[in-house]
Amino acid sequence: MSRPTPLTRDDFPVFRSLQTRWSDNDLFGHMNNVVHYQLFDTAVNEWLIKLGLFDPHNSDIIGFVVETKCNYFSELAFPDRVAAGIRIDHLGTSSVRYGIALFREDEEIAAAQGHFIHVYVDRQTRKPKALPQNWRLELEDYLA
Amino acid sequence: MSRPTPLTRDDFPVFRSLQTRWSDNDLFGHMNNVVHYQLFDTAVNEWLIKLGLFDPHNSDIIGFVVETKCNYFSELAFPDRVAAGIRIDHLGTSSVRYGIALFREDEEIAAAQGHFIHVYVDRQTRKPKALPQNWRLELEDYLA
Amino acid sequence: MSRPTPLTRDDFPVFRSLQTRWSDNDLFGHMNNVVHYQLFDTAVNEWLIKLGLFDPHNSDIIGFVVETKCNYFSELAFPDRVAAGIRIDHLGTSSVRYGIALFREDEEIAAAQGHFIHVYVDRQTRKPKALPQNWRLELEDYLA
Amino acid sequence: MSRPTPLTRDDFPVFRSLQTRWSDNDLFGHMNNVVHYQLFDTAVNEWLIKLGLFDPHNSDIIGFVVETKCNYFSELAFPDRVAAGIRIDHLGTSSVRYGIALFREDEEIAAAQGHFIHVYVDRQTRKPKALPQNWRLELEDYLA
Repeated sequence: MSRPTPLTRDDFPVFRSLQTRWSDNDLFGHMNNVVHYQLFDTAVNEWLIKLGLFDPHNSDIIGFVVETKCNYFSELAFPDRVAAGIRIDHLGTSSVRYGIALFREDEEIAAAQGHFIHVYVDRQTRKPKALPQNWRLELEDYLA
Repeated sequence: MSRPTPLTRDDFPVFRSLQTRWSDNDLFGHMNNVVHYQLFDTAVNEWLIKLGLFDPHNSDIIGFVVETKCNYFSELAFPDRVAAGIRIDHLGTSSVRYGIALFREDEEIAAAQGHFIHVYVDRQTRKPKALPQNWRLELEDYLA
Repeated sequence: MSRPTPLTRDDFPVFRSLQTRWSDNDLFGHMNNVVHYQLFDTAVNEWLIKLGLFDPHNSDIIGFVVETKCNYFSELAFPDRVAAGIRIDHLGTSSVRYGIALFREDEEIAAAQGHFIHVYVDRQTRKPKALPQNWRLELEDYLA
Repeated sequence: MSRPTPLTRDDFPVFRSLQTRWSDNDLFGHMNNVVHYQLFDTAVNEWLIKLGLFDPHNSDIIGFVVETKCNYFSELAFPDRVAAGIRIDHLGTSSVRYGIALFREDEEIAAAQGHFIHVYVDRQTRKPKALPQNWRLELEDYLA
């Protein structure tokens, strides 16, 4: 079972600063593996909101997650601050693969990295829709 | 069923800035009532760590929660930033009642407020211990 | 700071059986105080759905939580099974106070107990609405 | 971006029945993608405890998660009951890859499927340890 090599900050064009919570630590005293995905979701959605692309309550399209993956290299724990690096791994017709890595405090080497794939669907019909042109133009700037 | 009056920022001597997460929003599009308590825990524990009183992994004493309460006045939601006001409502022999209010973005009136009571116990025996003198001296400065 | 006396199973007319999750345990090896409120929400909402009163996606009214409280008497931990006792503490015009206690496995004495108050609001306008007659008739049977 | 085919119940030798919680539903009214991993953790750890292999508080070895993945095919939502199918995808020297699928209510086709890889480490030193013989003998029966 081969494991990927940790990425570094140089591999990412944009970062979001994230807080940890008391309840993130599990029985073993470190951040539970599930919490990394809460941070992935939070980092990417905040970034899409800040870019003016996504509005959780009103956008015509919403992202349905069809795949997630994460590799864990070293421990994170409350009360660490975490930097989330974001890049676009792939832009499909109606899907986007977001690549994300989590860096502990000021470290250069990722503590964890992974991706999630959004398929964008119409908010009402929940059928896939082609990614709007303004999304495509904006996200292209962050392609890996 | 009478309801308390919302507190204001003037009622609190110290604040912590907290982030919300995508998963904090429930089906109704606002922060689920449970999340407020994650923020209470996070705000107080980070503050105790910053004061040099508490170390989650090594302190002789750890805080067991024996009571929590929260009143909700207005909605919070991801991606809001939240300010948590903290004060000491009561200092007992081995217990502390922490009063906390959550303020949305730059608002002056609390969106929610409540408290939790910690009984401090020995990390190994889990029996209550008198609050150490350095805790008492430090926390007295923040009595309501 | 006085503490209430733990209730027993005899104090409750109806029970829901609940599972714990790996992530419920915090650094101290027991269920984090926040999780109790996830169980309160789950027990009461499942019960309201089973009674045919509430439909999360389609009911005309939805419950907004305006107050929650919990007292903790003894530890719960994954993989415990938990029985949640439910009763109606108070029926208001548009509000209901649900009393809940959590019992570990087959124990008779509550490990934790508390309440939450729902104010029922119109799903669209989010303004309080009088509790419908069928809710009132059904819930009266469970008054403490 | 190719997607795997959903597995069926016939692909799994053992199942655990899991509950959903109110807070599992996100803004879009379905189970947030993060919750699937809470269910993976819960299903496998409960099963290892039931087999007598793992004790969260006392086992000599504990499992550190080094990789997780999930593909999502159809929506789950509170108050669904979920069946988690478990199998052993791979038994390494000190690691195990657990394959898991989540089935909604009585459905035969997986709503989501994935895996996580545990590297087993000494509880004290946190260095990898060879999987004990009793673990190996037991888990071999569930190899995919």
